[in-house]
Amino acid sequence: MRILLLGGDGYLGWATAMYLSHQGDEVTVVYNYFRRRACLELDCEPLFPVPNLHRRAALWEAGSGFKVKVQIGDACDYPFLQDIFRRFQPEAVVHYAEQPAAPYSMMGHKEAIFTLTNNLVSTANVIHAVKATNLDCHLVKLGTMGVYGTPNIDIEEGYLEVEHKGRKHTCLYPKAPGSLYHLTKAQDGDMLYFYCRIWGIRVTDLNQGPVYGIDTDESRQDDRLAPIFNYDDIFGTVLNRFLVQAVAGIPLTVYGQGGQTRGYLNIRDTLACVELALRHPANPGQYRVFNQFAETFSVNDLAKKVQDAGRDLGLEVRIQTIPNPRQEAEQHYYQPVHTGLLSLGLEPHYLDKPILQEMLLKVAQSRERIRRELIMPRVHWEVK
Amino acid sequence: MRILLLGGDGYLGWATAMYLSHQGDEVTVVYNYFRRRACLELDCEPLFPVPNLHRRAALWEAGSGFKVKVQIGDACDYPFLQDIFRRFQPEAVVHYAEQPAAPYSMMGHKEAIFTLTNNLVSTANVIHAVKATNLDCHLVKLGTMGVYGTPNIDIEEGYLEVEHKGRKHTCLYPKAPGSLYHLTKAQDGDMLYFYCRIWGIRVTDLNQGPVYGIDTDESRQDDRLAPIFNYDDIFGTVLNRFLVQAVAGIPLTVYGQGGQTRGYLNIRDTLACVELALRHPANPGQYRVFNQFAETFSVNDLAKKVQDAGRDLGLEVRIQTIPNPRQEAEQHYYQPVHTGLLSLGLEPHYLDKPILQEMLLKVAQSRERIRRELIMPRVHWEVK
Repeated sequence: MRILLLGGDGYLGWATAMYLSHQGDEVTVVYNYFRRRACLELDCEPLFPVPNLHRRAALWEAGSGFKVKVQIGDACDYPFLQDIFRRFQPEAVVHYAEQPAAPYSMMGHKEAIFTLTNNLVSTANVIHAVKATNLDCHLVKLGTMGVYGTPNIDIEEGYLEVEHKGRKHTCLYPKAPGSLYHLTKAQDGDMLYFYCRIWGIRVTDLNQGPVYGIDTDESRQDDRLAPIFNYDDIFGTVLNRFLVQAVAGIPLTVYGQGGQTRGYLNIRDTLACVELALRHPANPGQYRVFNQFAETFSVNDLAKKVQDAGRDLGLEVRIQTIPNPRQEAEQHYYQPVHTGLLSLGLEPHYLDKPILQEMLLKVAQSRERIRRELIMPRVHWEVK
Repeated sequence: MRILLLGGDGYLGWATAMYLSHQGDEVTVVYNYFRRRACLELDCEPLFPVPNLHRRAALWEAGSGFKVKVQIGDACDYPFLQDIFRRFQPEAVVHYAEQPAAPYSMMGHKEAIFTLTNNLVSTANVIHAVKATNLDCHLVKLGTMGVYGTPNIDIEEGYLEVEHKGRKHTCLYPKAPGSLYHLTKAQDGDMLYFYCRIWGIRVTDLNQGPVYGIDTDESRQDDRLAPIFNYDDIFGTVLNRFLVQAVAGIPLTVYGQGGQTRGYLNIRDTLACVELALRHPANPGQYRVFNQFAETFSVNDLAKKVQDAGRDLGLEVRIQTIPNPRQEAEQHYYQPVHTGLLSLGLEPHYLDKPILQEMLLKVAQSRERIRRELIMPRVHWEVK
């Protein structure tokens, strides 16, 4: 399958590019280097240095024999994007090219406007490029479980059947996102749903939970192919941050009460989910939503798991509660459905002690690179 | 009250500016001349020529003694907007500065991206300016009933109480807008709701139905103060278009089956509703939604009313069904609640024959200016 992958240098982007090319797909990746530039400017560069995207593609090809084409540019630049669609003629697009960090989107006006325009204009451009070149092209967009917030009812996959005053109606599942970043993922989903109805495009929205993981089967052949691994307060995800804290002897920082529960998944499962979506495309006009995670944990659960895994390795891991920089429910009901991808054949990895210990050992190899000052939250949601 | 009115030259903007200044409010209007520029470029200028915004403010002041300050600039230009907030220190903002035409938003890529970025960035800028200068400032944003679409259940005012698998939850009322323009109004509403929750801003979202009307009490003193009146296929609203067609002897163009039902209101009621919202502000942190219309009609109802009102004036008005350029249900359930503004004291105008005849006579005075070629739809929703 000819697959255009937008956002091909990010945490998931490069791993997905290798994975799909290894499956035999013809993969072109597009990247604008936003994440690397932002990490540079905010002085929060990843734990493992990795070569640039062109270099990684060359290393991957040299080691595996599989080719990934690289195009540097911005999905928000419509002539650039349209030109790639015309030349490459993708049968599917994987759209990762959104600003992915909740704290970044809450830093200030500049970052808010960037997040809003980048995430919505890139999505609108992809929709228009699909319409202009090939309506049949399947658009797989990375969403987030964070669009739902923490409602007091079960979270369904995308849609909710409502009974109201004796009448019935099926609607998009109501959203209550907790950051501007998460909001833009609700807004782009609404936009995709609209153009599915009007133009008959075919879309899969993967509402993913927080991802963890340091390597993939493909990156193991060469450390320089590893995913970009952020552990800082802006771009780091919670479990990755905990692993670094455990290795560095910094207490695991639990925000507030720690009852915040989310659905987590291994980076390998992300790859499997995206592939399942691609191999089983949405129908024309269908806005299909999958809730993409393997299992749910509270932040306290995660902290205890890391503490426990660390203990056996001789790490003394402490857990520290700090004031929550975010505005979110710290104890809440959380019952999300996630049967769609399982029914397509997903066999998830579960977060057990061996996986945690393997990750801890991997981080420990780069212990001297850990910068302790990057970890405490600098961005606060609340008006002071 | 010090009121900042964004979008002060549009159909509703200038009428609102005069009305509020006449009530004794201190009004500053901001405008970027988008609508006039677009009408010029698309060759669909309004029926009545009106002077520019500075000239209208001068005429209004000379005739009434009430002052409206004019600032030409763009709400998407944050330094400009922030400067106005700092200098004028508004106690309330009326945000009309969005691209308001569904057909415009569906013309092509350029117009889609403009609608998306203009409507969302202007709203995000207002939110950030409120936060940066005065969190207490009440933000009144013009929404649209079109965000709801035509669900099979009653449309409530902004929120819906849901019972699902034995548990209860109150959420934003689900949206299913029918054009990209309407979608942006759902997206900006979601954004306002988010910042109400996080920053505690106070917001009223006025989900308005299609407006009709050619003059207001304030504009009657001088024809040059009349609202910008579009009757073309891009910026015209349905009843205004029917009036022009009736006068010009063109059959009233009913799109499809004509069962499309919406909530309509007189432009005088728009002014009254905005004033009620301003005098009774939302609470800090409250995202308050009003459904703003007086009565519901189908397109067929409206056509028959115009036909009937025209007959008594000696106009032979025919009704013609044409293929629907939009994608929308042409027969549907429609039961929207609209008690919020009534309970604040709104006394709506109803669309009776005398009102219709007065409007027909007013349009007839400009009969020779009507350009028949502007009326048939040029923008189609569907992929051909």
